[in-house]
Amino acid sequence: MKTYKQQDLANMKNIERACFVNCLSGFKSANVIGTRDRRQQDNLAIISSVVHLGSNPPFLGFIMRPHSVTRHTLENIEESGVYTINQVSEKFFRQAHQTSARYSRDVSEFEACGLTPEFEDGFHAPYVAESALRIGMQLVEVIPIQHNDTALIVGEVRWVKVEEEAVKNDGYIDIESLGTMAISGLDGYHRTQRAARLSYAKPDEPVKELDSNESSKDL
Amino acid sequence: MKTYKQQDLANMKNIERACFVNCLSGFKSANVIGTRDRRQQDNLAIISSVVHLGSNPPFLGFIMRPHSVTRHTLENIEESGVYTINQVSEKFFRQAHQTSARYSRDVSEFEACGLTPEFEDGFHAPYVAESALRIGMQLVEVIPIQHNDTALIVGEVRWVKVEEEAVKNDGYIDIESLGTMAISGLDGYHRTQRAARLSYAKPDEPVKELDSNESSKDL
Repeated sequence: MKTYKQQDLANMKNIERACFVNCLSGFKSANVIGTRDRRQQDNLAIISSVVHLGSNPPFLGFIMRPHSVTRHTLENIEESGVYTINQVSEKFFRQAHQTSARYSRDVSEFEACGLTPEFEDGFHAPYVAESALRIGMQLVEVIPIQHNDTALIVGEVRWVKVEEEAVKNDGYIDIESLGTMAISGLDGYHRTQRAARLSYAKPDEPVKELDSNESSKDL
Repeated sequence: MKTYKQQDLANMKNIERACFVNCLSGFKSANVIGTRDRRQQDNLAIISSVVHLGSNPPFLGFIMRPHSVTRHTLENIEESGVYTINQVSEKFFRQAHQTSARYSRDVSEFEACGLTPEFEDGFHAPYVAESALRIGMQLVEVIPIQHNDTALIVGEVRWVKVEEEAVKNDGYIDIESLGTMAISGLDGYHRTQRAARLSYAKPDEPVKELDSNESSKDL
């Protein structure tokens, strides 16, 4: 084992430090965020920081740097109040990655990257037709993280469009069966293979493996 | 595709909604967070919300509910100012999951779950010997998310202890080679298999696959 100290990190070139530090948190979620401004200009951006905030109310968050290449996304969200989160799967991860290029404001990344915008009725922001799990989100709050000039975007789930077979009896969604990918660092894309679902942990009782062959849900 | 609307989510039982909503963000990072209070009582908690905040300065965040079963972790962090983040790998994911049980404050989850605390010299918080990537963190700020009574814990990386072979020339850490797992929902644990590393995206230039056979880094 090698120990990298603060000074070792400080001595790295910027891109090397970015590669290194982006791997530290472990595997990251792979999502593209769809928005539309008031002139019907669409925007799509890959984001690896979408994070679960709570299930009641159903809240998701993500981290954004207001002055970065993804600023159009944040501007559209603040303008319209809504956005979509779309899980990235193996069949379109290259196109999803391509959305991180610096396109100008009047270019739709859907069009530039070969992805298809679709709409849930009455919802202003486009979702990605190629995605097997799409979420309509309503902005709740933009919380500034002042120490590094980023922000946590907090939103509430308004709707979820997903292949029903993936939703199990207990509510668990088999996102692996949807081909959803995980990201490492800035640019690593990974398939997954489930090792186990584990039972709710209790003191003095060993965890058991749950049966993963549950039937699909009939809500 | 089935559309689950707000009312469908509201109608779910709490545990079903928790299972469902916890799957929406995609794959989650698998880490255990090590802390120690001023009476040398250790604590270890599995957290699936560790997220990259920025690489310069190197900041990581995670989400915590101050009044939940993990509150001892937050209390220790606020008391001591330091904690460790340890990537969970396949060889100890069952023990890591077991740390989510409701142990009383005077029980060390290291001991109760069969994991080994070790110390980086002078650093107050224990790391997990079984983990192949351990990070020493200094608390920067606890940011309340008032709409759902959670908080974003912001910290700065002080040191990283990792198998050197996993660190590539460009700074990328091959966390897959370390056996690091990804989490789905509340209880799904997954191995990964890299599909590709993709080049930095530019407009009007298709992304290429990077060579993943880079030699290990010699800092």
